[in-house]
Amino acid sequence: MIRPIALLTDFGYRDPFAGIMKGVILARAPRATLVDLSHGIAPGDIPAAALALRQSVPYFPKRTIFTVVVDPGVGSKRRVVWGRSRKHDFLAPDNGVLTWLQDDDRITQWREVTNTLLFLAKVSSTFHGRDILAPVAASLANGLPPAKLGPKISNPERLAWPEPIRVRNGLKGVILSCDHFGNVVTNIPVNLARPQEHIFHRRRDLGPLRSHYAAVPPGRALALAGSAGLIEISTRDGNYAAKTRARRGETVYVRTPR
Amino acid sequence: MIRPIALLTDFGYRDPFAGIMKGVILARAPRATLVDLSHGIAPGDIPAAALALRQSVPYFPKRTIFTVVVDPGVGSKRRVVWGRSRKHDFLAPDNGVLTWLQDDDRITQWREVTNTLLFLAKVSSTFHGRDILAPVAASLANGLPPAKLGPKISNPERLAWPEPIRVRNGLKGVILSCDHFGNVVTNIPVNLARPQEHIFHRRRDLGPLRSHYAAVPPGRALALAGSAGLIEISTRDGNYAAKTRARRGETVYVRTPR
Amino acid sequence: MIRPIALLTDFGYRDPFAGIMKGVILARAPRATLVDLSHGIAPGDIPAAALALRQSVPYFPKRTIFTVVVDPGVGSKRRVVWGRSRKHDFLAPDNGVLTWLQDDDRITQWREVTNTLLFLAKVSSTFHGRDILAPVAASLANGLPPAKLGPKISNPERLAWPEPIRVRNGLKGVILSCDHFGNVVTNIPVNLARPQEHIFHRRRDLGPLRSHYAAVPPGRALALAGSAGLIEISTRDGNYAAKTRARRGETVYVRTPR
Repeated sequence: MIRPIALLTDFGYRDPFAGIMKGVILARAPRATLVDLSHGIAPGDIPAAALALRQSVPYFPKRTIFTVVVDPGVGSKRRVVWGRSRKHDFLAPDNGVLTWLQDDDRITQWREVTNTLLFLAKVSSTFHGRDILAPVAASLANGLPPAKLGPKISNPERLAWPEPIRVRNGLKGVILSCDHFGNVVTNIPVNLARPQEHIFHRRRDLGPLRSHYAAVPPGRALALAGSAGLIEISTRDGNYAAKTRARRGETVYVRTPR
Repeated sequence: MIRPIALLTDFGYRDPFAGIMKGVILARAPRATLVDLSHGIAPGDIPAAALALRQSVPYFPKRTIFTVVVDPGVGSKRRVVWGRSRKHDFLAPDNGVLTWLQDDDRITQWREVTNTLLFLAKVSSTFHGRDILAPVAASLANGLPPAKLGPKISNPERLAWPEPIRVRNGLKGVILSCDHFGNVVTNIPVNLARPQEHIFHRRRDLGPLRSHYAAVPPGRALALAGSAGLIEISTRDGNYAAKTRARRGETVYVRTPR
Repeated sequence: MIRPIALLTDFGYRDPFAGIMKGVILARAPRATLVDLSHGIAPGDIPAAALALRQSVPYFPKRTIFTVVVDPGVGSKRRVVWGRSRKHDFLAPDNGVLTWLQDDDRITQWREVTNTLLFLAKVSSTFHGRDILAPVAASLANGLPPAKLGPKISNPERLAWPEPIRVRNGLKGVILSCDHFGNVVTNIPVNLARPQEHIFHRRRDLGPLRSHYAAVPPGRALALAGSAGLIEISTRDGNYAAKTRARRGETVYVRTPR
């Protein structure tokens, strides 16, 4: 059976770049199942792609090949890497984008992808998604043993996961991203908030962690157990991020209110 | 044969939410044919999704499973429903989104989806598309009899279809939506306009219903038989909605000019 | 085997128009592999679609059926055409969109698509993508001989390719498009720039053609061999088009610096 290939890029939806990658894959693996994870990552935004993978990977079929092209270093000497976790395979530029996966999805084997026989005959310096990652993904889908990709490595680039910090009266975390609905995703795991604690953003007390939007009146801000297991801040029937202009990196506290 | 699953959501294209739903479906129904109807419905815009379905459903293969996630009430007590028309199946939150279908596509059997054995093991309060609708769609695609979903119901939420009103000298309708090209879709069926009648918007006489754009010079506004069987207002080689800032709910008249 | 169908349109991602085309195709060719090349072409932008095809076609499987709906003339008397190159088939409105293909992909056989038996029973005047192009693409995917489409033609509409002009001290070209990353694509083939020559835009000397972004410091503008074989202008780790407000049609020079 042909394995699914899931694509995550910052190519946007105006140009045919993601479509071209699909053409390359289908020319080599005509029966591959292609899935668009997203092509709407902001250009070069490695943390956003790393977080999207963290949220998505657990839900995909075993042996899915995740192919990630968020690649501000394309054409420089950065490596292309393959990784394997218990259940999935990954291909990406070596820029840390594969290192925010959840514990169960953690990559335990890494290789540098160096086998130029697998690449397109002519490799450009600006579009490795087309020239390297797509044909290599197709080869893997067709059953190529990973050992043929290139040598094992043990030092992939890692992106530091910003652990929440224990402070005197609670936890100090940060905003990791804002989604399309204006929900603000923090780095604080839901299970670290104690029942009596409240969530604070910009000195505003958002109350305790709620279980669903309807726990507050429409238009009111609240903190929720997000679908990725992280605390999120939202406005019921509204757009918290747009309203407050919340930005990645801002501080969020979890602590007992005075 | 595996039935197609058509997805319609307000998830946008930046986050991986629609991709995650596809992962869930493919993990359960690896051979399902997935079709993106759109993920660009404005957040929570139930009428826009209902109208998109009305326009789309007649063109899809028999037994397509339409899976709709425009769900401002997620996490509250709103039900999840299954519906069946003569030719298709539908899954959606019970918010009226399935009740603007054309007569031939009208849903005649309804069930509440209550069988938690079909859901993901852990159901969040914010992402039922992933946790409930996607796995249930996969089960249906795999041949699950609808009776296993949950009990029959006869009282789904209904969204009132704004019928055009007969007035002294013609018909009074409203704008239902504006599309990407700036075409304004009204609620007035094409066959209700008589040959001698003109279409009026904001006191402007747009002339009789034309059969194609080229019936007027470039840059000129006109009224057309839209592709959904409803009267539309457009600018030839232009964007009527952007130019006039037309909004949903504005009045449109069909009447004999003085 | 069912041939892939690649879709390129200006339908955007908000409305269900592209999804409806897929419904029509799958109702007739249930096993067709559908690929989205892009639905983000600006409304009616024929040159942008022609350039996207030029960049994409070489990478697709043999016998892919490219189906293009960028159709400002829909409903007028413009023809619908089929074309065949050595490796691929094409369907599009007859507006020149198929005439910027690279030499190896050039279309050598043309037909007007006139066989109404292949169309939907009712053809609208505003949505030929749904009513004509989608069902005809499905028929081709199912093995219909092209002779059944309609009569051969030898005079398809052609879009003039703006050849760079040889001037006294070099080459004068133009900007063809700006992509999502802010890269500016010119009409000057990479192999026409000689090693000692520099690229100039708005009197600014961008230096010689570089082989990769990292050849200049971050934030600096440069000229590159683009992935489509044309000279591109970019900002390393930045957005050249946004920063300079570069527009299609602006002049670019390749010449020896004084």
